Amino acid sequence: MIGKLLAGPVRVINVGLAGFARDLASHGTAVAQVDWTPPAGGKRELLDALASLQSNDIEKANQTALQKILAAEPVLADVRRAGELIPELDAGRLMLHAGPPIEWQRMCGPLKGAICGAIVFEGWAPELAAAERLAAGGGVQFAPNHHFGAVGPMTGITTGSMPLLVVENRAFGNRAVCALNEGLGKVMRFGGNDAEVLARLAWLRDDFGPLFGKALRSNEVPLVPLIARGLAMGDEMHQRNVACSSLLLRTLSPSLARSARNIESLAKALEFMGGNDQFFLNIAMAMGKSILDPLRGLALSTIVTAMCRNGTDFGIRVAGLGDAWFTAPVEMPQGLYFPGYSAADANPDIGDSAILEAVGLGAFAMAAAPAVAGFVGAGGFADAVAYTRTMGEIAAARNPKWGIPALEFAGAPTGIDVRRVVESGIAPAINTGIAHRLPGVGQVGAGVARAPLACFEKALMALAKHDR
Amino acid sequence: MIGKLLAGPVRVINVGLAGFARDLASHGTAVAQVDWTPPAGGKRELLDALASLQSNDIEKANQTALQKILAAEPVLADVRRAGELIPELDAGRLMLHAGPPIEWQRMCGPLKGAICGAIVFEGWAPELAAAERLAAGGGVQFAPNHHFGAVGPMTGITTGSMPLLVVENRAFGNRAVCALNEGLGKVMRFGGNDAEVLARLAWLRDDFGPLFGKALRSNEVPLVPLIARGLAMGDEMHQRNVACSSLLLRTLSPSLARSARNIESLAKALEFMGGNDQFFLNIAMAMGKSILDPLRGLALSTIVTAMCRNGTDFGIRVAGLGDAWFTAPVEMPQGLYFPGYSAADANPDIGDSAILEAVGLGAFAMAAAPAVAGFVGAGGFADAVAYTRTMGEIAAARNPKWGIPALEFAGAPTGIDVRRVVESGIAPAINTGIAHRLPGVGQVGAGVARAPLACFEKALMALAKHDR
Repeated sequence: MIGKLLAGPVRVINVGLAGFARDLASHGTAVAQVDWTPPAGGKRELLDALASLQSNDIEKANQTALQKILAAEPVLADVRRAGELIPELDAGRLMLHAGPPIEWQRMCGPLKGAICGAIVFEGWAPELAAAERLAAGGGVQFAPNHHFGAVGPMTGITTGSMPLLVVENRAFGNRAVCALNEGLGKVMRFGGNDAEVLARLAWLRDDFGPLFGKALRSNEVPLVPLIARGLAMGDEMHQRNVACSSLLLRTLSPSLARSARNIESLAKALEFMGGNDQFFLNIAMAMGKSILDPLRGLALSTIVTAMCRNGTDFGIRVAGLGDAWFTAPVEMPQGLYFPGYSAADANPDIGDSAILEAVGLGAFAMAAAPAVAGFVGAGGFADAVAYTRTMGEIAAARNPKWGIPALEFAGAPTGIDVRRVVESGIAPAINTGIAHRLPGVGQVGAGVARAPLACFEKALMALAKHDR
Repeated sequence: MIGKLLAGPVRVINVGLAGFARDLASHGTAVAQVDWTPPAGGKRELLDALASLQSNDIEKANQTALQKILAAEPVLADVRRAGELIPELDAGRLMLHAGPPIEWQRMCGPLKGAICGAIVFEGWAPELAAAERLAAGGGVQFAPNHHFGAVGPMTGITTGSMPLLVVENRAFGNRAVCALNEGLGKVMRFGGNDAEVLARLAWLRDDFGPLFGKALRSNEVPLVPLIARGLAMGDEMHQRNVACSSLLLRTLSPSLARSARNIESLAKALEFMGGNDQFFLNIAMAMGKSILDPLRGLALSTIVTAMCRNGTDFGIRVAGLGDAWFTAPVEMPQGLYFPGYSAADANPDIGDSAILEAVGLGAFAMAAAPAVAGFVGAGGFADAVAYTRTMGEIAAARNPKWGIPALEFAGAPTGIDVRRVVESGIAPAINTGIAHRLPGVGQVGAGVARAPLACFEKALMALAKHDR
């Protein structure tokens, strides 16, 4: 890209560090600046690893990976009790959380807050202080959602009695699950844990979840065409789900009516779904995991199968490296804050929702959702288009089923190639909510976070070693 | 706009008729072509009229007109029986139709077909052949919807027993009405008139209409913010209403549930609304009329208050000219046909729905709805943007409440100025459905039609005369 061009005939073209151009310009020389950085930041070991990861076999493996992504047939099929879907949750005091593995001591505020709320919700402690003592004392086991075929937004807490959305990938026979979206305001996924939060969870468990599951069993929802429709309606499926949430309600409302215990239960369910533009987020997340899971353990493939954060660490998984985690300290999102809050209140990036970027949505599909660019502080329409174009540089393909209108229906960039990330130095962008750093407060804003390059560099080195 | 530039240094710049440039180019001369046509096609009487219509008073009147458009507060408030809202419909055998006034003999096929169906529906004749004899024999009075505060899509038939949507413009205390959208397939608005069509109309009259009205009375829907949301979700509100139809169902579903006689009546209503992406069209049309009606009779204003077609004539009304019609033969839409149909099957442009373009939606907002550009055969994203930019040249303002994402949220071009149309020669574009030319068949495609320039030229001459 060519930067500032000073008046008069150009005498110097400066490539790379802009300081030289500025010096020349300050002495009156007309200079054109060409932005350029060396591949992989010029680091020798990364360049060697990149060189070793160029082979037909790797290209073939990545083609297979992409074919699996494009052949996926995710269907929203059911809502069932978590303990029924993941028996380990009923076998002991096990609780799942967002991101890569982490012990209690290193957890961030909102994650601890959500865990304490969930302990009370499950009846393992009578109140929050006792819950904290139980968790700190080793009385609860923790594991990532990803270890049990699950995902969860923000804190992403999953416990045995919660109702989980079930997305089945019919092309490959696998399934992924995710808790129901709780709505806005004080909610457990942002670290909320008071009586209001727990009462809503109880209603989801006892009333809404069973109704929604019954409606789905009589009226399954294929998700690839729904996402395609959402992209043509301004959703990117991470920070904007208004189209898919509305289309889903519209599709399911007759079966919800026929499945309801009574009119009031139905009306409340419709109000709850209709009151939340982000209702579809959790469905999109389970879909993302159901699409990418068939790539796990695909030898040689350099395609990312998961990106997630626990509020302390960022972790990625790569197809050719099975279920290994490659982690680095998580970064702070850059974004906009709700009135009364600022960056000083913000928790670092958290949640399994970056599975959406891994599957080509969220910030990767920002060009479909110019309104979201404003919401996350990323600018306007042109900026949204620039995000998608830039993410296209680290993606292995375009998904022809998911066209973006403003790009003349070119497909969303899909399949992050670890090699391209390291070579270009372009860190995957992630559209994200921002949680308060203290337990019990909730959401304070929304923004764009970046996946730490270090995760991809570690994975690249492991791929190079693995390949030998 | 500069056209083709031949290689080599330009020796000639040709302005206007391209033939001269082609001649020069064919002899090897490097020539740049500048597209240009003389204002008002160079017609002396139009140029004189345009010159006479430049005054501060006219600008002020148009500012007032625009302020009335921008201050409008249309609210979807109710559904009531047509005869209750328009008592003249119950007083005799009066039937309202789309477009400017027209007698039976000059009516097109689908309009006659719809009228015969509506006569049977109202019980004025036992079957279609008898209905046609009654209509041809003068046994039914016809009048435009616009003469009774109504609009209707395509054939636009309104009779006494039909349930009508009621949109109230709270800023000015006026209201506009429109029949309910019947859905796709064989429907009266496209000239359908068989038992299936009449049975659906009976269900709308007896079941859906009363339910929808009851839900609205407990849950009115402000329309300006809903349209704003729809524009950010790919609707242009004429040939694409999927976002607003879905958002409306989502908003109303709890009140529909609480208003329903029983679960099955509710489920059928939700299926009907949810099965029709164009459900919202008729609401948008009533809204358009409710916004523009307060401009009627605004002295000196050159802003268009209505555009409509009866399948034979195209008619417009202009603020400063009260309720006078300026008509010209209607044109054929250019578009895409459903499988099995072609332009040979098409009826000329028909319907009151061009009220949407008059209020700044439809083809004027095409940049918001790139998907519709493909549907109506107008091209892709860039073409959609070009439509909105071109329509901006004949509009008096941009509506800041109705931002278009792909134009960095610039407002939809709003308020067609008769002077600009005549001066530029740019005929308003209209996104439209295409009906079969024979009675009883239905929709055969969708396309873009143009308002005949002659309507605007006649109105301009009348304005110039009126002003003197």
